Amino acid sequence: MELINKSKSIRVSVDVPSGLMMDNPSSGVVVRAQHTVSFQLPKLAFLLPQKYQFVGQWHLVNIGLSKQAIKDLSANKFLIERKDIKKILRSKARTKFSHKGNFGHALLVTGSFGKIGASVLSAKAALRSGIGLLTVHIPRCGYQIIQSSVPEAMVSVDPSEERFTAIPLLSSFTVVGVGPGIGVDIQTVKALRDLLQAVKVPVVLDADAINILGNHRELIQLLPQNSILTPHPKEFERLVGQWSNDFERLDKQREFSVRTQTFIILKGAYSSITAPNGTIYFNQTGNPGMATAGSGDVLTGIVTGMMGRGYTPEQAALAGTWIHGLSGDIAAGELGEESLIASDIIDHIPQAFTSFR
Amino acid sequence: MELINKSKSIRVSVDVPSGLMMDNPSSGVVVRAQHTVSFQLPKLAFLLPQKYQFVGQWHLVNIGLSKQAIKDLSANKFLIERKDIKKILRSKARTKFSHKGNFGHALLVTGSFGKIGASVLSAKAALRSGIGLLTVHIPRCGYQIIQSSVPEAMVSVDPSEERFTAIPLLSSFTVVGVGPGIGVDIQTVKALRDLLQAVKVPVVLDADAINILGNHRELIQLLPQNSILTPHPKEFERLVGQWSNDFERLDKQREFSVRTQTFIILKGAYSSITAPNGTIYFNQTGNPGMATAGSGDVLTGIVTGMMGRGYTPEQAALAGTWIHGLSGDIAAGELGEESLIASDIIDHIPQAFTSFR
Amino acid sequence: MELINKSKSIRVSVDVPSGLMMDNPSSGVVVRAQHTVSFQLPKLAFLLPQKYQFVGQWHLVNIGLSKQAIKDLSANKFLIERKDIKKILRSKARTKFSHKGNFGHALLVTGSFGKIGASVLSAKAALRSGIGLLTVHIPRCGYQIIQSSVPEAMVSVDPSEERFTAIPLLSSFTVVGVGPGIGVDIQTVKALRDLLQAVKVPVVLDADAINILGNHRELIQLLPQNSILTPHPKEFERLVGQWSNDFERLDKQREFSVRTQTFIILKGAYSSITAPNGTIYFNQTGNPGMATAGSGDVLTGIVTGMMGRGYTPEQAALAGTWIHGLSGDIAAGELGEESLIASDIIDHIPQAFTSFR
Amino acid sequence: MELINKSKSIRVSVDVPSGLMMDNPSSGVVVRAQHTVSFQLPKLAFLLPQKYQFVGQWHLVNIGLSKQAIKDLSANKFLIERKDIKKILRSKARTKFSHKGNFGHALLVTGSFGKIGASVLSAKAALRSGIGLLTVHIPRCGYQIIQSSVPEAMVSVDPSEERFTAIPLLSSFTVVGVGPGIGVDIQTVKALRDLLQAVKVPVVLDADAINILGNHRELIQLLPQNSILTPHPKEFERLVGQWSNDFERLDKQREFSVRTQTFIILKGAYSSITAPNGTIYFNQTGNPGMATAGSGDVLTGIVTGMMGRGYTPEQAALAGTWIHGLSGDIAAGELGEESLIASDIIDHIPQAFTSFR
Repeated sequence: MELINKSKSIRVSVDVPSGLMMDNPSSGVVVRAQHTVSFQLPKLAFLLPQKYQFVGQWHLVNIGLSKQAIKDLSANKFLIERKDIKKILRSKARTKFSHKGNFGHALLVTGSFGKIGASVLSAKAALRSGIGLLTVHIPRCGYQIIQSSVPEAMVSVDPSEERFTAIPLLSSFTVVGVGPGIGVDIQTVKALRDLLQAVKVPVVLDADAINILGNHRELIQLLPQNSILTPHPKEFERLVGQWSNDFERLDKQREFSVRTQTFIILKGAYSSITAPNGTIYFNQTGNPGMATAGSGDVLTGIVTGMMGRGYTPEQAALAGTWIHGLSGDIAAGELGEESLIASDIIDHIPQAFTSFR
Repeated sequence: MELINKSKSIRVSVDVPSGLMMDNPSSGVVVRAQHTVSFQLPKLAFLLPQKYQFVGQWHLVNIGLSKQAIKDLSANKFLIERKDIKKILRSKARTKFSHKGNFGHALLVTGSFGKIGASVLSAKAALRSGIGLLTVHIPRCGYQIIQSSVPEAMVSVDPSEERFTAIPLLSSFTVVGVGPGIGVDIQTVKALRDLLQAVKVPVVLDADAINILGNHRELIQLLPQNSILTPHPKEFERLVGQWSNDFERLDKQREFSVRTQTFIILKGAYSSITAPNGTIYFNQTGNPGMATAGSGDVLTGIVTGMMGRGYTPEQAALAGTWIHGLSGDIAAGELGEESLIASDIIDHIPQAFTSFR
Repeated sequence: MELINKSKSIRVSVDVPSGLMMDNPSSGVVVRAQHTVSFQLPKLAFLLPQKYQFVGQWHLVNIGLSKQAIKDLSANKFLIERKDIKKILRSKARTKFSHKGNFGHALLVTGSFGKIGASVLSAKAALRSGIGLLTVHIPRCGYQIIQSSVPEAMVSVDPSEERFTAIPLLSSFTVVGVGPGIGVDIQTVKALRDLLQAVKVPVVLDADAINILGNHRELIQLLPQNSILTPHPKEFERLVGQWSNDFERLDKQREFSVRTQTFIILKGAYSSITAPNGTIYFNQTGNPGMATAGSGDVLTGIVTGMMGRGYTPEQAALAGTWIHGLSGDIAAGELGEESLIASDIIDHIPQAFTSFR
Repeated sequence: MELINKSKSIRVSVDVPSGLMMDNPSSGVVVRAQHTVSFQLPKLAFLLPQKYQFVGQWHLVNIGLSKQAIKDLSANKFLIERKDIKKILRSKARTKFSHKGNFGHALLVTGSFGKIGASVLSAKAALRSGIGLLTVHIPRCGYQIIQSSVPEAMVSVDPSEERFTAIPLLSSFTVVGVGPGIGVDIQTVKALRDLLQAVKVPVVLDADAINILGNHRELIQLLPQNSILTPHPKEFERLVGQWSNDFERLDKQREFSVRTQTFIILKGAYSSITAPNGTIYFNQTGNPGMATAGSGDVLTGIVTGMMGRGYTPEQAALAGTWIHGLSGDIAAGELGEESLIASDIIDHIPQAFTSFR
């Protein structure tokens, strides 16, 4: 196998690369395939970063396994497919006589001095994702910026010039998204605590909101049931501690979802989404061009917008992650991965939704 | 009929769904059709939200009734058709030697702290609708925002940092639009009263201007003749009190128009437009994707722009509502209903107008 | 002829409408043609607003007059043709090794509180018209607006918060454009006087700069030779007093150009451009959709940009007027006359220039 | 030869124009060709401004010289070709599981009062060139402008309202770009000195940063190894003094690179890029429409973005210059050279990168 790995020929594995452990971290020598041709369904390992060096690009061959038999298998890990998202989106189609009151009112608590861009990006993304009304809560330094950049949004201004320190009246909102660009100042920690104690609807938490939870773990118990957290791996580590391999990471993610009764969208290639009942979903859309500043803020906006507009948290988590990745894929198809910026993802959300018409 | 309603087959009614009352609210059992195939002209009930659950999507079959006979019927309810709008637009075509002074000067009184986006949206829509000159009156907090977002507009700044408290000199304006985002502060109530007392041209009132009229009904008598109000149903309710069904709502709308000698555009699917002479018009353009933040501000801008540019109030009400809906339909055709935002409606106003070339 | 004028048929005149005076205002009965079919070259009357009601739309038939004979006629009135503009643009083509220092540095003195949009529009237009460097001088209230809207421009800020009161150092500029949105405050009058006394290059004057000249006619003698004024008829009237008909207007325009040794672009359909030597040119591009707020600011930007970039004042006046109208024509072809706004004209300047490639 | 030069025929030289010195400035009579048809490879003189009047447009004929023989020649001057850039871009392709931390964090120190546009342009260009995260350090007067214009960027605000006077914490940045629009105030000189002393990564210096080096040559020795300077000829002259001809200029450029161990991109047609080892590269992309305000700021952004994203300084210098010129060429193809503005170059960076797919 070491000989194979040294070869200058293109290395193709069939089924799985020889020596690769499918359900735990590999040890010993493993063939490093550039391509792996496998059968019917992808294996879990194909979706994990640490296995990528061995699996390379993978391809599936349909060998005619019974669809019924596959369905009957009891599984708690699913690769999300386009048809699943189509079903979710169809379930809440707009009807002739609906009005903006039917599509909810989202609150986004975002931004701090120097990071108001996060507010702009998440707000635009929420508006593109079907929400009826949107209020953005920002520190005073962001006032002109948001009103100039997002005329469709209403603005609630914090008493602080620089950061989130006090919550607005929450009664009119159908969802609250919090975190992008808020920083981890002690006043913001207090405001986040107040928010979690006062809020009566599920919350979407991202970025610094998650960092605060990591630093103040007593806040975790305040999370409303069916809230959604959207950490990247570093943020998730702050929440649950280190892991030694991707399998352990998945276990920690599932355990956290079950314990806190929340959804976790762990961002990356094949983002893993865990549900309060322990199910794990893997997303298939997205591309490495989306590894760019503000991409996560856009996801927060999409998920918040969809949840506020009437999708269940599970629907919003699955469909929101898919739409985010698909928007990025359409954008990269036009503009390339290298030049892709977060605003491009937002600009292509409409095409992502209409691709399901 | 209950048996039919439980059927999993597609239910199609011919003429009208069995049991459906055409001219008053239904009681008793009614067939819930998914489609209704009817003859020559739509019935009033087809245009009302409360009948939608029974009528479903409707289709017309031309059975050759005499056009002259139809014309000779005395009716006070009309479904606006594309050819009606074409006639209105043709009546005021621009001529070779016209200059910007020929196209009027509109004043838009809009916005308050946190809601300056309403000013931006209505201003852009007015400029896209043919007005020659535009001045936007806003509280001081909106100054930078408007001048950055709408360079074609001139700005009149209120003495107040946060809201509309004092009217500018009105002599140069050919129309005044007031309401989007102004709030209902007591100072604003006073300023609106001053405006209505001083103004010598018809006024377009929307949103909080209507809410103020609802809370201070003595102001209603100050409305200049042939003014246009553009409430959504909640705002209209504040003005005239509750109704028990759509027929009563229509009666209240007509009665209000006749009594106050104003036009009312009651927004929704098939927006109903009532004239001072008691005529009721129904608009056919628009889609549920337009149920989104700022959509109403855009309508205010269009109607104000068209009235200021030289259309009569009736023409501006009918054609403005049609153009607003058509712009949204063209936008939704491109971007989808789910992602549609108010700025998209504005961006497609040019296509709506040029579709009549 | 009165019978003809009452006819509901389409009225077509051959050569000229019967009864129409060609070289002076008509009196008596004149046929009101909807179309006039004439020969070889248009007559002066075809280009004048007051004759439009008689001439209608005009068409030319080539009857084979000798081109040489036409050339040999001594004339001082010219209808600008596309080929004339092509020649001007070709004369200053960019060469391989040119750098931004080769294309001049323009100063635009524009805007006042509430009218900073004029600064934005003229600056964008200048940059689209080939200038190498651009500095915009504005009152302090416009600082954020210009820097946000026109990142390519440098900004010089007036000591005044609200208006133009003091000139910047002028030594580095190859052209100065002044007027759009500056108002007529007494401090601004003084600053304009200072500017005209200090400047050593030709100046482009528009809008309020012309209104100030009209109110303070002693300033007219300070105009640098070969400056360009771009009044609309109302502004020109303030400069030279009233006229009783279009012929007298043309005479006044020519007389003013000769006396002050400046170019006058009198805006309207078939804008007339007079040169210091008494020649009159008529422009053929443009459409009534351009009768919209800010359209004139765009012309100021184009003419200033072209003059600063190296065209002679005469070339800049002729080609700038043509490009402005052509940009508007291309924009109207896409967006329609009704919805056209000044920003659309700017957006189509590139297409206007490249149409000459 | 003087006779030839007076001819009105088109003058075509074969190989080289008669009398033209290839390796030093010409003296005596030289044929001024409009076209030169030469063989296999361009001569150095074809790439120099002072020879352009003699060489005109040049064309190459492949006469079948051995590619191997050409490769074996020891040369230290190279004309960059498209395939060289393709190789560079391929060497750092994004992989499936990469995340934004993999693509670096750039700091741009740019702008001063009146010149914040330089910050906007360079920031947008950097984001379009693959950088993972971007922080822009600006004086306080630029805060709203950057956050409104570039939501993807984070902002670090200088203690000064008007200019760069103090460096932020540098530890998290993988590259620093400094210079566009910063001015040459004494406080800025001090801050630049502090920056050069503190920084531990290569720096990209442009515009006023280079002017400061020219005025304070003791700062040159502080340049981190493998830094990149992007002067235009005037700025380079301030750094090294005058030259009498293009050959001497090239010598000075090479000497400066070797002595300071930096890369110099000397901007112009056929920008020359010198490396610390004495190699000279010539770029082939770009057009005279790019001689426009802000074009250089865009180059700074591209080179900074690419270096921060993981390209070596040499790769970033070569590929960045090529991409800058190519973006401008694509933009000019669409919009024409005359109307081209710096923002157009940025808008076409994605197409420049994807042309290599």
